[in-house]
Amino acid sequence: MSGKPTIALDAMGGAHAPGMVLRGADMAVQRHPGLRFLVFGDEPVLRPLLAKFPRLAAVSDLHHTAERVLDDDKPSVALRSGRQSSMRLAIDAVAEGLADGVVSAGNTGALMAMAKFVLKTLPGIDRPAIASFFPTRRGESVMLDLGANVECDADNLVQFALLGDAFARSVLGLIEPTVGLLNVGAEDQKGNDAVRAASLRLRNPLSPIRFHGFIEGDDIPAGTVDVVVTDGFTGNVAVKTAEGTAKLFTEFMASAFRYSLSARIGYLFARHALRKLRMRLDPRRYNGAVFLGLRGIAVKSHGSTDALGFANAIGVAVDMCVNGFLDRLRVDLERLDAAAAAPQAAAL
Amino acid sequence: MSGKPTIALDAMGGAHAPGMVLRGADMAVQRHPGLRFLVFGDEPVLRPLLAKFPRLAAVSDLHHTAERVLDDDKPSVALRSGRQSSMRLAIDAVAEGLADGVVSAGNTGALMAMAKFVLKTLPGIDRPAIASFFPTRRGESVMLDLGANVECDADNLVQFALLGDAFARSVLGLIEPTVGLLNVGAEDQKGNDAVRAASLRLRNPLSPIRFHGFIEGDDIPAGTVDVVVTDGFTGNVAVKTAEGTAKLFTEFMASAFRYSLSARIGYLFARHALRKLRMRLDPRRYNGAVFLGLRGIAVKSHGSTDALGFANAIGVAVDMCVNGFLDRLRVDLERLDAAAAAPQAAAL
Repeated sequence: MSGKPTIALDAMGGAHAPGMVLRGADMAVQRHPGLRFLVFGDEPVLRPLLAKFPRLAAVSDLHHTAERVLDDDKPSVALRSGRQSSMRLAIDAVAEGLADGVVSAGNTGALMAMAKFVLKTLPGIDRPAIASFFPTRRGESVMLDLGANVECDADNLVQFALLGDAFARSVLGLIEPTVGLLNVGAEDQKGNDAVRAASLRLRNPLSPIRFHGFIEGDDIPAGTVDVVVTDGFTGNVAVKTAEGTAKLFTEFMASAFRYSLSARIGYLFARHALRKLRMRLDPRRYNGAVFLGLRGIAVKSHGSTDALGFANAIGVAVDMCVNGFLDRLRVDLERLDAAAAAPQAAAL
Repeated sequence: MSGKPTIALDAMGGAHAPGMVLRGADMAVQRHPGLRFLVFGDEPVLRPLLAKFPRLAAVSDLHHTAERVLDDDKPSVALRSGRQSSMRLAIDAVAEGLADGVVSAGNTGALMAMAKFVLKTLPGIDRPAIASFFPTRRGESVMLDLGANVECDADNLVQFALLGDAFARSVLGLIEPTVGLLNVGAEDQKGNDAVRAASLRLRNPLSPIRFHGFIEGDDIPAGTVDVVVTDGFTGNVAVKTAEGTAKLFTEFMASAFRYSLSARIGYLFARHALRKLRMRLDPRRYNGAVFLGLRGIAVKSHGSTDALGFANAIGVAVDMCVNGFLDRLRVDLERLDAAAAAPQAAAL
């Protein structure tokens, strides 16, 4: 991958598309000079909008299609009848080597189904996973799977560990991220068969992963590890529970500051510091769920995000391209194969 | 159950036992006049302590045993060799009808194993579950299972729904609690086989449960339903993730108030309101995980709780006794059986 990636954009996906998509892409151009875009969508709508962003227009090729995937389209329907949709054409551009990655704020299920069908999974990976990063006490961590695979066996979990490790190195810039397996306790005998078997394999001294061991739910926000590995059912529930709890806390705090005149005065004095706190937890900073395990880079922005959030999602795709996510992963997969084949691993 | 329950106390369980246990029991006597206790533990230690709480001493019978279950005892070991432990004797008192419920802050695994062995599960319940309640936007909700059963089938989940429903009516005083099944999406086809099959059965119009349908992780803190039903793996991760996120948020807020002189002044003005916020979220208010599905009432207090937390755990046991938890549950179990046997349910 050269230093200047080209990103394919589904300009029609997301609640505030296409305006939010173009505005976000324009912010991304400012942050990442040299970035180029292939923009897929309805040209009569996009052309006048793009004219408002001359910096973006100068680095974008517009590809017209009148079709788009709707938010309530079933993945199977989108896959069958959406071959000319803006989402599909953007993914095709990655498969054809015209773009280095694709970003869409459209229908998650359709994007996953199309990306899997068009890009295919990498050799050594049985099923792709959805990953995202989130704020912790220590900074930021990565978690996967967040819902692509409701049921997972030990092989899936070990592969997720590899995917998360390569992602944390590419996007968080960590040299040797620690990886933890989410469980209901830290002891060896805890959990179900899948996590116990995956743990045994990740403890293999030849494994390319720096494996911390089992972690529990409270280790996620504590940032005990850089990469949290779990099945898609548990991961989806955990990430939504954390988001909901943060939201509840914010609401409780806002109502506390309305509680009395004294509290309102207190808020006036503290508001600058509290704004910094809100920025630290701003969900737009953590926008961009990534589909890992495919032969290409595909990032899903939250459907209701604004331009800033979309620019951050593009930033994730750019980091993965520039920092060689796919190459790092291929090396890890080979090392894992070698570890499994080594004589001392045979007993595991 | 008459209006004045007798609670068996494991006086030796918990980091701050036995002082915390007796102080907590004394608070509970003040809150629930007429309450009586059977106190199990080391008499030479307990007798002089009890003398400091004359109100408690007047309603307590002390039963000496020098043995106790340690925090790192394996459940199987505690079960085999702890027959004269304060924990076991307190549970035995419930089985023998001498007490209406048992409260312990000791080893969770040992307490569950002993309670299951001594009290047995109720007819119609295959496996007991651990339940607790927690703060939400709307007030308080109940969640189960929190870790007793790492893998659950549809029968288990349906039974947990019944247990949670009876618990919410007894302890939260709700007339017709709403019950939700935790999943990765609200649509019928989402999730694994167990949640889909359980959902079909709970939708049976003859079922005694007011079933809301599937809920997601963010519905837990939002308080979308009064009772959250899930398997022990997901429930354990979700509750610990929520606790950890709340803790992280509190720390971030504390550091925001230290950020500048202005923020410190703001804190001084707002501190009364912020103290109310902390009280609203005080984990001691939500102390007491309950073992549901047994032929008796067993409440596990957090091991590191203080007297106030222990008094609240006793309060949960008292509410369950006074409000006829076991009787409500028996009625529900019969109605569920009838619903499953009804002709219109045969197709499900």
